[in-house]
Amino acid sequence: MAKPSPCSLGIDFGSDSVRALVVDTRSGAELGTGVCAYPRWARGEFCDAARQRFRQHPLDHLEAMTAAVRAALRAAGAAARAQIAAIGVDTTGSTPVAVDASGTPLGLTDGFRDDPDALFVLWKDHTAVAEAEEINALASKGRWKGITRWVGGIYSSEWFWAKAAHVTRGNRRVAAAASSWVEHCDWLAAELSGTTALDTLVRSRCAAGHKALWHPSWGGPPPAAFLARLHPRLAAVRATLPATTATCDHRVGGLTEGWARRLGLRPGIAVAAGAFDAHLGAVGAGVGPFTLVKVMGTSTCDMLTAPAGSVAGTVAGICGQVDGSIVPGLIGLEAGQSAFGDVYAWYRRLLSWPLADLGARGRAAADTLLPRLEAAALALPPAGDCLALDWFNGRRTPDADQRLRGAISGLHLGHDAPALYRALVESTAYGARAIVDRFADQGVPVKRVVALGGIARKSTLVMQVCADVLERAIAVVASDQCCALGAAIAGAVAGGIHPSVGAAQKAMASKVERTVRPQRAHATAYREGFRRYRALGAALGG
Amino acid sequence: MAKPSPCSLGIDFGSDSVRALVVDTRSGAELGTGVCAYPRWARGEFCDAARQRFRQHPLDHLEAMTAAVRAALRAAGAAARAQIAAIGVDTTGSTPVAVDASGTPLGLTDGFRDDPDALFVLWKDHTAVAEAEEINALASKGRWKGITRWVGGIYSSEWFWAKAAHVTRGNRRVAAAASSWVEHCDWLAAELSGTTALDTLVRSRCAAGHKALWHPSWGGPPPAAFLARLHPRLAAVRATLPATTATCDHRVGGLTEGWARRLGLRPGIAVAAGAFDAHLGAVGAGVGPFTLVKVMGTSTCDMLTAPAGSVAGTVAGICGQVDGSIVPGLIGLEAGQSAFGDVYAWYRRLLSWPLADLGARGRAAADTLLPRLEAAALALPPAGDCLALDWFNGRRTPDADQRLRGAISGLHLGHDAPALYRALVESTAYGARAIVDRFADQGVPVKRVVALGGIARKSTLVMQVCADVLERAIAVVASDQCCALGAAIAGAVAGGIHPSVGAAQKAMASKVERTVRPQRAHATAYREGFRRYRALGAALGG
Repeated sequence: MAKPSPCSLGIDFGSDSVRALVVDTRSGAELGTGVCAYPRWARGEFCDAARQRFRQHPLDHLEAMTAAVRAALRAAGAAARAQIAAIGVDTTGSTPVAVDASGTPLGLTDGFRDDPDALFVLWKDHTAVAEAEEINALASKGRWKGITRWVGGIYSSEWFWAKAAHVTRGNRRVAAAASSWVEHCDWLAAELSGTTALDTLVRSRCAAGHKALWHPSWGGPPPAAFLARLHPRLAAVRATLPATTATCDHRVGGLTEGWARRLGLRPGIAVAAGAFDAHLGAVGAGVGPFTLVKVMGTSTCDMLTAPAGSVAGTVAGICGQVDGSIVPGLIGLEAGQSAFGDVYAWYRRLLSWPLADLGARGRAAADTLLPRLEAAALALPPAGDCLALDWFNGRRTPDADQRLRGAISGLHLGHDAPALYRALVESTAYGARAIVDRFADQGVPVKRVVALGGIARKSTLVMQVCADVLERAIAVVASDQCCALGAAIAGAVAGGIHPSVGAAQKAMASKVERTVRPQRAHATAYREGFRRYRALGAALGG
Repeated sequence: MAKPSPCSLGIDFGSDSVRALVVDTRSGAELGTGVCAYPRWARGEFCDAARQRFRQHPLDHLEAMTAAVRAALRAAGAAARAQIAAIGVDTTGSTPVAVDASGTPLGLTDGFRDDPDALFVLWKDHTAVAEAEEINALASKGRWKGITRWVGGIYSSEWFWAKAAHVTRGNRRVAAAASSWVEHCDWLAAELSGTTALDTLVRSRCAAGHKALWHPSWGGPPPAAFLARLHPRLAAVRATLPATTATCDHRVGGLTEGWARRLGLRPGIAVAAGAFDAHLGAVGAGVGPFTLVKVMGTSTCDMLTAPAGSVAGTVAGICGQVDGSIVPGLIGLEAGQSAFGDVYAWYRRLLSWPLADLGARGRAAADTLLPRLEAAALALPPAGDCLALDWFNGRRTPDADQRLRGAISGLHLGHDAPALYRALVESTAYGARAIVDRFADQGVPVKRVVALGGIARKSTLVMQVCADVLERAIAVVASDQCCALGAAIAGAVAGGIHPSVGAAQKAMASKVERTVRPQRAHATAYREGFRRYRALGAALGG
């Protein structure tokens, strides 16, 4: 009988739920999975969608994690459970929280349990638009000119310091009680390993480098004088941040007795440094140098790694480039589209308006609308008269600009619902091409494209149009839990089961399910379509 | 007992059906009406929508007219019927047909009864795009430079000579058999009065001046040498056209014995010269100098009259200016939007796509969709982020350009179906403002705005947005058959019952049903919206 394989547990905190996955570290087999939604979030608590305020309670994360891990262990069975030797964690980001001196999120402390400002500020919270503009103004000239150059030259309202500044300015009680601010992924790794105290808390390279202006050239976190311009208390927060950060293969500590008991695991097993979901998703998808991994969901995250020294200077207009942010030893480059599946979901909501009063049949028609539109749109020729811009949620890359908006042009009285749907799908593919072209223009070749996520696995139309527009084959990854798989890979390296992320990927990364090949017959039409897309974007302010 | 009033019969040939209306010439009371659809047209015969070929058989017109007039007479009763002393006719236009030497449409002669090219070429037939471009090229330089200046400087594929040239080039049999070409309104007046023979056939000022390049400065019809450039046979057609044309108050003859018998009227009663529906609609609405009458349907026709001498030169970018084309003695100016109600109908079709499979409830939901959208859109603030262009069927005025297309811009993920509907309605109102502004810019003041048609009478949202955007009160006309009423007015003058169109209008023109007043509170938002509309149009090629 073969010696049982060591296993790793990946825990993936998404926007709405957490997923736990038990993975065999030798075969990569996914042995058990468990999912649990965040209960308070599902009830809409602490949020105000009209003001784009999205907050999450740390109790949601802890309770849902416990349930999801226990479910995954049950599914994996007792033998696998006994083999679990490491844990990796990924979360959304930038999703920071104010913490006290013990590293505890204020929302878990007396007097703050119901204060939205004491909770995690979710990645898509847009309350800090003014603070982001202020950071960009500071970074545009004078002493702090260029401080945003490693994050693409434009600081987003979705990121760490804009959010910390917004809450600190707006809530005196939270400002006074906050000793520091911590990213979601860092807090969870610290919580599981008992290292939340600010002098022991490990900050991940990925979150710090891409969202919190951490860079070795200025000694790590941004200078205190810069942060003081946003708020004096942020200068004090600066003092709690270490100069160094950890890549995802770093062991932050051993699982605490308390969490081992609650989760049903052995105490002391390795806990890896946290990272963002898209970054570990790229790891789970087996990203190698110059492979663009497209994490396709409501938005896309486009992840690429390159050997150090292969990228000359900074890549203008791309969201960030950070040494080791995805795979240790490689430069991690992050790009993405602010709306991708969200564009199709918007159109589905638009067309479902007349269905709202039609009861169960109306709901069924709404549920099947996108597949039916897709079937009809597949029969249409490529790049018709109708041309859309995909900037329904602003533009993330290339050249972030949250003020840009979507559009549909070239409309005549003969255009029907499938024609507009096809134009919207084509617009998202053109947005993807703009990113690939920007990488290439800046000397970073994209040698291979890999896609993961629900849309990649389910939509024939979207993937074919993307392949046609990119004029590249797209490998679609088989796993539907690549982020959790990447977290398990990080755990396996942090736990010493594999010597490196590369080696762990060889054993554990997801297989390719299918490869979508570009149709040469469509290339000319789409090149012209992409030219018109860029002209339309330029005409409308992009 | 008062002496019975003389009555006039207005016959209005629309795109799909003909309406007959008996009107008391003293009180303006509408005593009886009858409507009949064109049977062959309703079955789609002779048309090819995919190629935008729309033809109508003269038998459709004669049969439907007979039924509609008989129905109107029955409804009016025997006493009114005995008082009918005149007939006026209006039709769509430019809707020309090839005729033989007796003035008979070829489609009524042996060997041509089923040939689409021997039938009326309906106003919205767009098969003559190439010929219109050729006319515009001829008119742009050299000997014929400026020949289109009285029709706005751009000749449309919807007009007389483009259509005659297209059919003449494409169908040798029709070309050889055609002695002349005749507008729909002219043929009907001639048919009823037995004056179809080419040497007696009266050509209306309205059709000839706005669509067939008739102008006194070059002796009436365009020169034979110009027409010969399009086709040699058209130079021969030129010889059949009289130098003079008739205003709508002209008596072309008396009703023939045959038609009197078929219709149930007295022979010999006056038949007025024909005119276009929108022009006589403006007459029925009581148009006076500097009153803009908006005939609001699938498209709009915007009619304005001005005293001779008040318009200096030509009004650039407006479809035409012709002395007496609307009211004898006044300059008639014609403008319009290529798509108006058609924009809303397009959106209704778009949103109805998911309803197609839902049977009777789906059909009911589609039927009530626009009123429900209107109710929801009324609650939204004016001129939101979402901004549309109304050029879904090209642009008619100002500055005709059939290549232009519609657009919806400024879209974000929060925009819902009512928000887009409001933006589309606002875009049609901005298009209306562009016309009013163009008149004003060219020294033709718009002193009053009157609206007629189904949309004007039914849509609170459309009319309020139009009034707000125009920053003017809009008087909505009570009659829902203003075109037929205008035809009856023309008949009453041709028959000598009233001495002038102005006098007849005083007695007979429709009353104003309600006046929609602009909301001052919205003026600033809409001025900014109109500025953005023009900028968007300019960015997209307009």
